[in-house]
Amino acid sequence: MTTTKRMDINADMGESYGRWTLGHDEEIMPHITSANIACGFHGGDPSVMRRTVAAAHAHGVAVGAHPGLPDLAGFGRRAMAVTPDEAFDLVVYQVGALLGFAMAAGLPGLSHVKAHGALYNMAARDRALADAIATAVWAVDPALILFGLAGSELIAAGERAGLSTAAEAFADRNYLRDGSLVPRARPDALIADPAVALERVLRMVGEGKVRSLEGADIALRADTICIHGDGPHAVELARTLSEGLRAEGILIVAPGAEPAGD
Amino acid sequence: MTTTKRMDINADMGESYGRWTLGHDEEIMPHITSANIACGFHGGDPSVMRRTVAAAHAHGVAVGAHPGLPDLAGFGRRAMAVTPDEAFDLVVYQVGALLGFAMAAGLPGLSHVKAHGALYNMAARDRALADAIATAVWAVDPALILFGLAGSELIAAGERAGLSTAAEAFADRNYLRDGSLVPRARPDALIADPAVALERVLRMVGEGKVRSLEGADIALRADTICIHGDGPHAVELARTLSEGLRAEGILIVAPGAEPAGD
Amino acid sequence: MTTTKRMDINADMGESYGRWTLGHDEEIMPHITSANIACGFHGGDPSVMRRTVAAAHAHGVAVGAHPGLPDLAGFGRRAMAVTPDEAFDLVVYQVGALLGFAMAAGLPGLSHVKAHGALYNMAARDRALADAIATAVWAVDPALILFGLAGSELIAAGERAGLSTAAEAFADRNYLRDGSLVPRARPDALIADPAVALERVLRMVGEGKVRSLEGADIALRADTICIHGDGPHAVELARTLSEGLRAEGILIVAPGAEPAGD
Amino acid sequence: MTTTKRMDINADMGESYGRWTLGHDEEIMPHITSANIACGFHGGDPSVMRRTVAAAHAHGVAVGAHPGLPDLAGFGRRAMAVTPDEAFDLVVYQVGALLGFAMAAGLPGLSHVKAHGALYNMAARDRALADAIATAVWAVDPALILFGLAGSELIAAGERAGLSTAAEAFADRNYLRDGSLVPRARPDALIADPAVALERVLRMVGEGKVRSLEGADIALRADTICIHGDGPHAVELARTLSEGLRAEGILIVAPGAEPAGD
Repeated sequence: MTTTKRMDINADMGESYGRWTLGHDEEIMPHITSANIACGFHGGDPSVMRRTVAAAHAHGVAVGAHPGLPDLAGFGRRAMAVTPDEAFDLVVYQVGALLGFAMAAGLPGLSHVKAHGALYNMAARDRALADAIATAVWAVDPALILFGLAGSELIAAGERAGLSTAAEAFADRNYLRDGSLVPRARPDALIADPAVALERVLRMVGEGKVRSLEGADIALRADTICIHGDGPHAVELARTLSEGLRAEGILIVAPGAEPAGD
Repeated sequence: MTTTKRMDINADMGESYGRWTLGHDEEIMPHITSANIACGFHGGDPSVMRRTVAAAHAHGVAVGAHPGLPDLAGFGRRAMAVTPDEAFDLVVYQVGALLGFAMAAGLPGLSHVKAHGALYNMAARDRALADAIATAVWAVDPALILFGLAGSELIAAGERAGLSTAAEAFADRNYLRDGSLVPRARPDALIADPAVALERVLRMVGEGKVRSLEGADIALRADTICIHGDGPHAVELARTLSEGLRAEGILIVAPGAEPAGD
Repeated sequence: MTTTKRMDINADMGESYGRWTLGHDEEIMPHITSANIACGFHGGDPSVMRRTVAAAHAHGVAVGAHPGLPDLAGFGRRAMAVTPDEAFDLVVYQVGALLGFAMAAGLPGLSHVKAHGALYNMAARDRALADAIATAVWAVDPALILFGLAGSELIAAGERAGLSTAAEAFADRNYLRDGSLVPRARPDALIADPAVALERVLRMVGEGKVRSLEGADIALRADTICIHGDGPHAVELARTLSEGLRAEGILIVAPGAEPAGD
Repeated sequence: MTTTKRMDINADMGESYGRWTLGHDEEIMPHITSANIACGFHGGDPSVMRRTVAAAHAHGVAVGAHPGLPDLAGFGRRAMAVTPDEAFDLVVYQVGALLGFAMAAGLPGLSHVKAHGALYNMAARDRALADAIATAVWAVDPALILFGLAGSELIAAGERAGLSTAAEAFADRNYLRDGSLVPRARPDALIADPAVALERVLRMVGEGKVRSLEGADIALRADTICIHGDGPHAVELARTLSEGLRAEGILIVAPGAEPAGD
């Protein structure tokens, strides 16, 4: 008996703020299975959060929190020297705030938590920060699934905390030999061609490997693939991936979720 | 068979922010039964919220959310033309955020919600705004108790929404003949003498009446008495009230709570 | 000898914020003579302000401050109960901040100040608020020109304060009989057709009149015409107006400025 | 002919925010000669800024800007990965904002600029950041005096930019052998005894030296001595220093200022 391979596709959603619109949430939502919804610190506001929870729910997309650093002007992308205690507190706050909207929408709770931007990147490398985030998620709800960069300290911290984790890979980002992402500031950070991105993801699913920028293969556990909703080709990439993976018989489904329609 | 009379004493707690300290939470907490904890919009920050939830829990004080307008610089005391939809969203957000800390502290949930400052005052008179707040509270958790000015639109909205409500009276504020509070800007807004405040509260409990500034008695249902934690005599007032009410055989207990120690 | 008629065309510029882009500043800048640059409270951030000052300077457009209420989430469009003292302070702060960028760009100073959104609207009707704003502008620099709705309290306050004023009319907004603007929330608030807008402006310049929504003509002094940079037809409207007015021999020039190129 | 020695005493002022009060500005103002006034990013708000400029002016204290990182919740004390361009922009913005209040108060301009908290500390070591700050100050007004840690990159950057600089020493902080301050988190960071602090300052003025925590003397150019206005002994320290230095015949005067009353 063979097991059907499964993969989650996640995207950062709800990053508009007040008068300002960002991303292509409407067009991307049909192609993903997990939505990481901004919680007001780096983007998103209460009204955007309500609408984004409703949209995800309507599309059968898993609703997760996307907490960031308290840096709206910098979109949470600037590293900040927050202490582990501060990180614990800002994760509890933001996860709770989104939980409020999930409860108001009649959902039983949130599905997952994925840290945003600099918080995500710092927690990938800093064990104390990673433990603080994982502990905060567990403290709010031990059933939440913690998303983190594959092979990162955050995934390890989630496992220490007793959480289910989802190792994240990036379809449209290049990797360095050590498994880290090529920094955004570099011109070779991004993979623009959706077809190339799909090829890479299929290899991650099939072989558990990705080719690094230096040319060597690196091992990569990928439970979920991230689409950047604000990129110029975001919609096309989302569609190419979801259709391409399904065409290969891979089940596109959120972590921990029952496959729909069976 | 006689029923023991009961009264709740509530205070706004956790209004410090970052480097800035406000109020006398430590000294007041032993004398109250309900804490209205600021949620970060008009005061409070994630770390203050965590510590204040822990302190209330340690004192056996009911943990409630104290959502305010998004106006940190104005401490939520400036009226703002928020729409009912915006009010719904900012209440859900803030109640959810505090709920996160309650869950992280192992509490089963929050006990109550009391709007802060200008939001409280506007919702006392504006039916659409009051309905939005009450609906938001109900949407997050129908078991939450809605606090509001006795006789206000907010109490009526809570009842329409199917919530339990607690009508609030003020020990240290003067009333006008129509049951509204004398505005803070007026010199006769406050009652400075704790003994006088106690006398007034005892009459509210015993007779359901308070003397207005104009001299006429007004009927007043009081389920909970508010102490302002940041006033100069806050601690003395809190102690005078809690001891004075207990001396008269009145049970000091949060709304909906079982009396302790029986 | 006849005097050439002159008119200023102004637009709100620099309302992007951090990761979020708003408006069509690049395309509109060639068609206007006064830029009202957001100062960080309702929109704009320090980097956007620097770039917008540079762009206006490069196009020979007068650089003015566009101070708003401290309400980023509401884009400064929600009325807030700020006191006249608070209004004075927030105008001084924001005008000063933009002045910093003007000085850093080598400009001798700012040209004008135009309040934004709800602050503009409140000051059109509230004499105390209008006086506070005018006094603040005068206190920073008595040579600044105060923009305000034609016939408003703000224009009157500017004259009381000893400032030069520029009465503003709107090309793409309908007026009520009393000279106020039809509120944005109404479906007939906006005039979508640039050709109609041009006709109305030509009549303002030629006859000092505009047709109100109720059908009666109202007298209107118009020193400057406002283009909304974030509207869907903003660029087309800006070009239609600037070309149409020039074709009628009207000099398009900022208030107080020497006509270029003569 | 002998030259009278001179020294400036500076303190961070105006760090209250909205409803929250911080520091002892009133009591410290009489003992200092330079006030570094918070500009709203880490503390201070427009109303506090206006009042603090007025108080400094009334005491004949030099008015300077104290720009910080955009981190109100962290009081500007958390390092943030701002780029040099971002640092340039946030310094221009904040210096400009305070300049607005100086102009509104009838002052000809500001006297100096001192970066706050983490921005100050980062710029002490990071040459690119230091150059960005110095260039920003120069761009707004080349006559401004740049304050910075004695021996730091910021002082060097100020000299490269063509600014007058004031090397700052700390009366109540211990130094490490390399001339840096003992980090605040360490228990031996602070010197609590004002008499000891005075002794150290007198040695700085007389010999240009200070004893490091490791026991070795280090050379230190001190043009200005910093008092921390929010410390528990701030007022006593300020008085002890100003009186003790005067008793030794040292002229207490702001950098660049003419001595008063001679």
